[in-house]
Amino acid sequence: MTTLPMPGFAEVLAAAARIAGHAHATPTIASRALDAETGARLQFKCEHLQRIGAFKFRGACNAVWSLDEASAARGVVTHSSGNHGAALALAARGRGIPCHVVVPEGAVRAKLAAIAAYGAILHPCAASIAAREAVCAQVLADTGATLVHPYTDPRVIAGQGTAALELLTAHPDLEALVVPLGGGGLAAGTALAMRALAPHCRLYLAEPSGAADGARSFATGVLDHDFVPDTICDGLRGTLGAINFGILRTAGAQVLTVDDRQVVAAMRLAWTRTKQLVEPSSATALAAVLAHRPLFEGRRVGIILSGGNVDLDALPELFAIAREAQP
Amino acid sequence: MTTLPMPGFAEVLAAAARIAGHAHATPTIASRALDAETGARLQFKCEHLQRIGAFKFRGACNAVWSLDEASAARGVVTHSSGNHGAALALAARGRGIPCHVVVPEGAVRAKLAAIAAYGAILHPCAASIAAREAVCAQVLADTGATLVHPYTDPRVIAGQGTAALELLTAHPDLEALVVPLGGGGLAAGTALAMRALAPHCRLYLAEPSGAADGARSFATGVLDHDFVPDTICDGLRGTLGAINFGILRTAGAQVLTVDDRQVVAAMRLAWTRTKQLVEPSSATALAAVLAHRPLFEGRRVGIILSGGNVDLDALPELFAIAREAQP
Repeated sequence: MTTLPMPGFAEVLAAAARIAGHAHATPTIASRALDAETGARLQFKCEHLQRIGAFKFRGACNAVWSLDEASAARGVVTHSSGNHGAALALAARGRGIPCHVVVPEGAVRAKLAAIAAYGAILHPCAASIAAREAVCAQVLADTGATLVHPYTDPRVIAGQGTAALELLTAHPDLEALVVPLGGGGLAAGTALAMRALAPHCRLYLAEPSGAADGARSFATGVLDHDFVPDTICDGLRGTLGAINFGILRTAGAQVLTVDDRQVVAAMRLAWTRTKQLVEPSSATALAAVLAHRPLFEGRRVGIILSGGNVDLDALPELFAIAREAQP
Repeated sequence: MTTLPMPGFAEVLAAAARIAGHAHATPTIASRALDAETGARLQFKCEHLQRIGAFKFRGACNAVWSLDEASAARGVVTHSSGNHGAALALAARGRGIPCHVVVPEGAVRAKLAAIAAYGAILHPCAASIAAREAVCAQVLADTGATLVHPYTDPRVIAGQGTAALELLTAHPDLEALVVPLGGGGLAAGTALAMRALAPHCRLYLAEPSGAADGARSFATGVLDHDFVPDTICDGLRGTLGAINFGILRTAGAQVLTVDDRQVVAAMRLAWTRTKQLVEPSSATALAAVLAHRPLFEGRRVGIILSGGNVDLDALPELFAIAREAQP
């Protein structure tokens, strides 16, 4: 496997040029009510309005359109049954190339159906990591396709950085950015854009306390992968990647943790005030601003609303979590 | 009480000039997924992103800013404890004048709190129409304020017409417009804008079958007020106004009824596909397009998403209605 170079701002700019016409340039919105509630001046970058309903399309699209003709013809592979799987499938369809998705037993059927609807070929495997890697290796051997990791692939990181590129181009005076932290693809891409366009700006990473490998890794300086995620934020259960950690430490990013109760309350608040249907993982960033008010009060803050793929049938359970919070 | 003149397109244009800078010029959105699902080319006018979360702010704002200085100083009155009450309160606060809202016993506390938060003076009354009219008359006698009816006031109708004015200015090639029908303020205002800007365009009114006074009135040619509303669309329980009926008949509007089951299914679909949190009353229009597919297939259709004030705590009950539909 070829080692890909560490991405920088040049790669983010190249990604922006590459995905233009495929991905949406999403709008930014403000809310007087949420400004009043937080004491800050917030700009929300609407990645829930991105294609497939999440920022993931940017990175997947950049990876797919980065391939030379011969590689592209052999297709792409991934093992994400979430937003990245859907994003890669749609991006591959856009280029007219095959997309293979290795899916573990027990994955949510609705998500698999969505990925299949975008034309991907599903390869079922047992739920273990060993089984997944074995099937992935087999698909790679059989097809010669290119593996596109959901958040450590440099082309994916550069692609995700185009959201912050658009946000900071539209609002160059932002003093802080807050993005959700899972594997670190969006976070690292944001750091690359921010360092070049707004070096004065502070980067905050909002992480669920039930998947706080990022917070522990930042605290010790050593990547901590030894945890079992326990959070409703299904987009943020992945473990922080090494390349992502490196980029984020260089950027002086700070992790803020929030619990599921705070996430659901922030999600409901975002729905009520902005009428935008954002998913729990998205709401971590607003939850962090509410929970750490002194860091943001009186400042111009950019928040990336990362996605809007809410499981409506699970809402009663989600809302029950927020109610437990009330005395 | 002075009789106000029948509004026309000139009044809609005057309203647009009057409310500019107070009300938002809301965006229009499209959705490839919903186009595929309906077979039409849809443009959604986002009045759920209007101030107070509903188109009602347009009409209230126009009424408030239409008053001469002396009348304005005496304030405004209404008896709506829903979106119109909130809209009138916020519009009055914008002009710095008093707003009185007569509220019947049993009104939703959260809505009353919202109206009070905008600075309105609440006047409780018993739940009967006689009690409401008596308290209204008393407030008018005591204060000299101006009564602003939620949907028969010509200033309100003209104000609501500014939503369609913006929509048809941005998309002059629309072949059909679909708007929810309750009292007929939005519908009549839309008819005024449409007749002037797009006389070739057809106007469809989406009405819940549990409040189908509009459908019956159109069928017989006589206003039918003899019904007890039974629908989850709380914004559409009012009875069609006489002035509204007159304007809508002149415009050749056609009523399409949908049941609550169809409304909830359409609401869920709108949420999932557009990530916009629209309320049940809003979703009637999309439900009508889905239920009457042959009328809209292959055509360019404008839909006014009238509001986004969803009671999140009532969602489990709402969703249960849609599930009953599935075989």
